[in-house]
Amino acid sequence: MHPAALAARRVVVIGGVAGGASCAARLRRLTETAEITLFERGANVSFANCGLPYYVGGVITDESKLLVANAAKFKSWFNVDVRERTEVVAIDRQARTITARELPTGREYSAPFDALVLAPGAQAIRPPLPGIDLPGIFQMKTIPDSNAVRSFIEANGVRRAVVVGAGFIGLEMVENLVHRGVEVTLLEAGSQVMPPLDPEMAQAVSAVLASKGVKVVLGDGVAGFEQGPGGKGMMVRTSGGKTYDADMAMLVIGVRPDTALAKTAGLELGARGGIRVDEHMRTSDPVIYAVGDAVESKDWVTGEWGLCPLAGPANRQGRIAADNIAGRDSKFRGTQGTAVVGLFGLTIASTGANEKTLKRLGRPYVKVYTHANNHAGYYPGASTIDFKLLFDPKDGLILGCQATGTEGVDKRVDVVAALMQLRGSVFDLEEAELCYAPQYGSAKDVLNLAGMVAANHLRGDHPIVSWDDLPRVKEEVAAGTAVLVDVREPSEVARGTVEGALNYPLSSLRARLHELPKGKRCYVFCQVGLRGYNATRQLLLAGRDAVNISGGWRSALQAGVVSSTL
Amino acid sequence: MHPAALAARRVVVIGGVAGGASCAARLRRLTETAEITLFERGANVSFANCGLPYYVGGVITDESKLLVANAAKFKSWFNVDVRERTEVVAIDRQARTITARELPTGREYSAPFDALVLAPGAQAIRPPLPGIDLPGIFQMKTIPDSNAVRSFIEANGVRRAVVVGAGFIGLEMVENLVHRGVEVTLLEAGSQVMPPLDPEMAQAVSAVLASKGVKVVLGDGVAGFEQGPGGKGMMVRTSGGKTYDADMAMLVIGVRPDTALAKTAGLELGARGGIRVDEHMRTSDPVIYAVGDAVESKDWVTGEWGLCPLAGPANRQGRIAADNIAGRDSKFRGTQGTAVVGLFGLTIASTGANEKTLKRLGRPYVKVYTHANNHAGYYPGASTIDFKLLFDPKDGLILGCQATGTEGVDKRVDVVAALMQLRGSVFDLEEAELCYAPQYGSAKDVLNLAGMVAANHLRGDHPIVSWDDLPRVKEEVAAGTAVLVDVREPSEVARGTVEGALNYPLSSLRARLHELPKGKRCYVFCQVGLRGYNATRQLLLAGRDAVNISGGWRSALQAGVVSSTL
Repeated sequence: MHPAALAARRVVVIGGVAGGASCAARLRRLTETAEITLFERGANVSFANCGLPYYVGGVITDESKLLVANAAKFKSWFNVDVRERTEVVAIDRQARTITARELPTGREYSAPFDALVLAPGAQAIRPPLPGIDLPGIFQMKTIPDSNAVRSFIEANGVRRAVVVGAGFIGLEMVENLVHRGVEVTLLEAGSQVMPPLDPEMAQAVSAVLASKGVKVVLGDGVAGFEQGPGGKGMMVRTSGGKTYDADMAMLVIGVRPDTALAKTAGLELGARGGIRVDEHMRTSDPVIYAVGDAVESKDWVTGEWGLCPLAGPANRQGRIAADNIAGRDSKFRGTQGTAVVGLFGLTIASTGANEKTLKRLGRPYVKVYTHANNHAGYYPGASTIDFKLLFDPKDGLILGCQATGTEGVDKRVDVVAALMQLRGSVFDLEEAELCYAPQYGSAKDVLNLAGMVAANHLRGDHPIVSWDDLPRVKEEVAAGTAVLVDVREPSEVARGTVEGALNYPLSSLRARLHELPKGKRCYVFCQVGLRGYNATRQLLLAGRDAVNISGGWRSALQAGVVSSTL
Repeated sequence: MHPAALAARRVVVIGGVAGGASCAARLRRLTETAEITLFERGANVSFANCGLPYYVGGVITDESKLLVANAAKFKSWFNVDVRERTEVVAIDRQARTITARELPTGREYSAPFDALVLAPGAQAIRPPLPGIDLPGIFQMKTIPDSNAVRSFIEANGVRRAVVVGAGFIGLEMVENLVHRGVEVTLLEAGSQVMPPLDPEMAQAVSAVLASKGVKVVLGDGVAGFEQGPGGKGMMVRTSGGKTYDADMAMLVIGVRPDTALAKTAGLELGARGGIRVDEHMRTSDPVIYAVGDAVESKDWVTGEWGLCPLAGPANRQGRIAADNIAGRDSKFRGTQGTAVVGLFGLTIASTGANEKTLKRLGRPYVKVYTHANNHAGYYPGASTIDFKLLFDPKDGLILGCQATGTEGVDKRVDVVAALMQLRGSVFDLEEAELCYAPQYGSAKDVLNLAGMVAANHLRGDHPIVSWDDLPRVKEEVAAGTAVLVDVREPSEVARGTVEGALNYPLSSLRARLHELPKGKRCYVFCQVGLRGYNATRQLLLAGRDAVNISGGWRSALQAGVVSSTL
């Protein structure tokens, strides 16, 4: 028990959304004697900021639905003194007081604390670009933000919008603007949409955007805004010199931890710009805690400190800070970055590390791709889940996964997240005993299949490469040491294949094996990987050198190494 | 490597659906030199028997969809010699030969084996009741069964049916008959529908059946059938002396392992009547393997041997038998009984042990109930998942869970199944980092909440009882040592509460604490458990003795200990 904890009679919490609100409520359940005061500079504690895009889109129709709790409930349930529209402007660490300013009146007063919790959240990044203050340029972080966008759309009959930033909020804004009948251009400075995904997995996202008529511009950032001709609308200028006309623009290029107070108070920050905390959520001052989007947290998959502005971890951190203030030795185990977003019926989810990160860290990994049905193919309505699994080449420890599809995507990623939490391996995934009835899954679920592919690879039964390796493969082919073998049926091959690939359908491979040139490595592929695996086994057992290209033709299209002829 | 394995040049597989088909395919991927012959007495290998009820219901419209593979594919892909409509009628273990009978011709021949795999499956139980052979009495195990039912319904204009047996297949048949416009009576000899669930969790199933006009009769079994008056339809007579008129009857009271061949061959059977196998899926004869619905498998949660006629385990067992035949030391880890069924939009799923089993085994456990939204309440369309979690009172090891609801139920059970697989605890569940966006989950997911309730209990912060304890609680109240405290708002209490309960809404409990009689234990409850937990904490911190009744009023209604007045 930390000595400071015992004396925590007066606890001040700064910020009342996810982490701060959870902290205050949990703390009250651990002590009836502490005075708990919660300062919130906005008009509402505990509002559902993850719902804002849907409120703009009119999917959530009632603003009051966004208010998860309010000051009265905090008082009656938890005896927490909530002060809304009140900003804490200074912390005096020596005196252990804060200075609060009532925003409507400007009145300032100080309040003492024995323990302080910083939960200021993050702020939408709003770079000082030319024209940034023109009307019609919005961010999406608070209820007032969402009301401003709604009003602007209605008052101005917005028909065209530019959304800047193709991350979670950017995609949600695109969906909701389209839902309102707005024509959207999505501008992303990076080379792909949805940065948490690897680029080939982001292809499905780009495809659904295109199918809804969204114009996606990659590799070009916003450089400034100008008023439109005749004072109507605006022109969004890009770094690449392009101009897009629009009636409004959403700037959703990310958030930055709100560390102003922490900085002024001399608290230690991390390299990524968030407040540095230990596993007890304690800052460099042992009576000051920090939680939520403002802090850096450790990614326990990679071991890296980073920013993880997600509601789940914020809530957990709030409860852990409360535990420690109440004298309990409670620890935050870090984050694994589990996340999901919905986009026009497509679900995009991931957990753990992506390949870009593993590459950057130089961490050894293997990747496999599968494309299996969300449920039994014989039951109507089955759809494909595109799945990427990353794991350790030595022991099969799961490092991360990414999935896209229309049904059952979040389920698969949640199961992988749970296995990862207990340091599960691809062998565990292979054997997982999951729900099966024809509407829900398959006797060999998506996850079992991915686990099998990975486990078969690790056991040496199933050599694989990915389409990234195609340039090298083509060199081997050119050098006469390898052949590419498409084992699909001719009718499938006719719709597109890799130039120079031989066609030996699996169904007749055994009979025609003698035709295949000997002494050359066979790079085998099919549509999704299954027939390729069976062909690879046949070839290996016949003494040939064979390698399957993971995920087959469907992965080739996603990887963009070939383009469908149909 | 087993000595028999190396010599397995000729492998005979008996039975070609899930386990047998998986075994043959896997074995071919491990050896190109074995001669693999697969005998299937039915007309089709590898058919989707889990789809049969939906084929009857017209949800699956095309019979060919039920054929996952066929003999031609087994030949071309796997060089497996499939002999359909051919029954193996004898095994000569000394000579290592089987006798096969071609069913259409009656011709018999023998075939030698070095290794034999028994995958005969299970047979629908069809007791020799009076009138059992009347027309219109069906089971549901094969494609011909389902075709017979379809034809009968169409030819006879079936309007009323009795379904006997309220397990998985029984419920699926009810749904599909109702879907065809048939009026259904469901007869179940046991005291509840859906035996894998505990009775209180089965209430949701009964409720949805009632809402669809299905007449559910519990605690009464079928005793016989008589032809209806004038030769039209039938009368189903029950042990309890009741009679139900119907145009047809479905007997879906379970399956029994098909052990005829194994028994004749002198192979060891287990106490539950299935073929006994070791973890390599080897029977008491080391060159004979058995897999699938015909074998007993170990439930690794309880350590008990039992019958687990599910497709997932059957497939895994088939692959493991193949591994061992090919000389690999592969082991089956047992089953945990993960299962799901859909019923009129309700999803019912479970994994691990239920309370009935834990009680029977005398294994210590704690149970908690939660009733939380499948996704954020502020996003339209949220629905409640009723969730029961069973865990070890010492270390929180998860022992099992059951869930019902309309969306996201299978996801939660799959995540718990995965955590259980790696011997996860309620503390892991509390901290699980799962997908959250408003359409998919909540910042505190259903599973996090259940984990928190359980973990808070184990940490001593949250004493709980369940509604099972109500009789004892009422005795304490009568003895003057306890009070029941309903902490809901008066408007909720007006719709029904427990007789004699005091009403102290959480929102004013702190202010009115002095009114609560001192020196008595307070049994607290609310609507779903959350306010009860907060009230319990207040009371405990104020020095009172307090216990929360898990799951609140919603659990009371499910447990049937009280009935709603509205």
